[in-house]
Amino acid sequence: MRRKHDIENILEKGHEIIRQKGYNKTGVEEIIKTCNIPKGSFYNFFENKEDFGIKALNYYTEKQYEIVKEYLTNKRIKPINRLKKLYNLMTDINKEENFAYGCLIGNMTQEMAGISDGIIDEANKDLKKIRDLIKDCIDEGQRLGEIRDDFSANDLAVYVQNNFYGAQLKAKAEKNINSYKVFMKMTFDFLTIK
Amino acid sequence: MRRKHDIENILEKGHEIIRQKGYNKTGVEEIIKTCNIPKGSFYNFFENKEDFGIKALNYYTEKQYEIVKEYLTNKRIKPINRLKKLYNLMTDINKEENFAYGCLIGNMTQEMAGISDGIIDEANKDLKKIRDLIKDCIDEGQRLGEIRDDFSANDLAVYVQNNFYGAQLKAKAEKNINSYKVFMKMTFDFLTIK
Repeated sequence: MRRKHDIENILEKGHEIIRQKGYNKTGVEEIIKTCNIPKGSFYNFFENKEDFGIKALNYYTEKQYEIVKEYLTNKRIKPINRLKKLYNLMTDINKEENFAYGCLIGNMTQEMAGISDGIIDEANKDLKKIRDLIKDCIDEGQRLGEIRDDFSANDLAVYVQNNFYGAQLKAKAEKNINSYKVFMKMTFDFLTIK
Repeated sequence: MRRKHDIENILEKGHEIIRQKGYNKTGVEEIIKTCNIPKGSFYNFFENKEDFGIKALNYYTEKQYEIVKEYLTNKRIKPINRLKKLYNLMTDINKEENFAYGCLIGNMTQEMAGISDGIIDEANKDLKKIRDLIKDCIDEGQRLGEIRDDFSANDLAVYVQNNFYGAQLKAKAEKNINSYKVFMKMTFDFLTIK
């Protein structure tokens, strides 16, 4: 039990450091210091920094998954409105952080493509895990006649998920909400059957 | 003249290293070695690594700008088709690189938001410089009645530029062309007046 608690403590604090500072800019030393653990115990739990990176990404995704699932499977709300509520929430979170940090999955993908296959494979799995929730919600909206069905639910989910990452990128550069506003109005115009 | 040649040599080789490996993962030592210059001369040209990062980004953008300009101001082709040709070209370049590296402006934004205001301010300026070419092309397409005009040319340019970055992110994770295909079919469906 103690071991499990210790690992969770490192993943909880550690994933937040790499989300904010970036993976390459964060040394194992810093994670150890922040978590107040001896160096040896880090290497008891993780083979190396990359192994920590993969597990931190997985940990972050599990938490994100629960939030996205709660929003996108809420049967009291129409599917298209569930999506709107989810992306409004994500925008608000980014705004609170002054648009600087964004999503760990996106950040790690940008930073580690071509460098660590282990991290990129995990990121790809994580993107799909979240995207499948978006796909199911879009599929439901298509069956209800709210969402266009001339493209597959899967392709629409790809487009929506990617576009939000694009909006997030520009918001990081501009440090303002404008790209999210454009994302919201255009994406929902594109999805909605008028 | 010699000085100018030396700076260009460092920027040409150096920007390519940080595009492929990431800014934080690249040390000044590696740039010096690759360019075959003494350490002192690097610091004659650049105040520090951040100053090099800003100038490398600017150098990359100038080169990208010329390519984008050539494609998007080619009056022999309809504006909507200029955009298609440009994004097909960008997709091909990414494919040749096995989807691993992408765009230096996007990479630096992801990596350095919240860390270096100097780099982020340069990235923001660079994104806008390229985006203004997209905006002008869309504006021309709107006046010709090819491209929808219920959104401003500027907002449409924001959406198109961001969405391509989103597609690029997913392609890095998946290492395949699928997200670019989705980007192409949906973006041009969205833009085109039927």
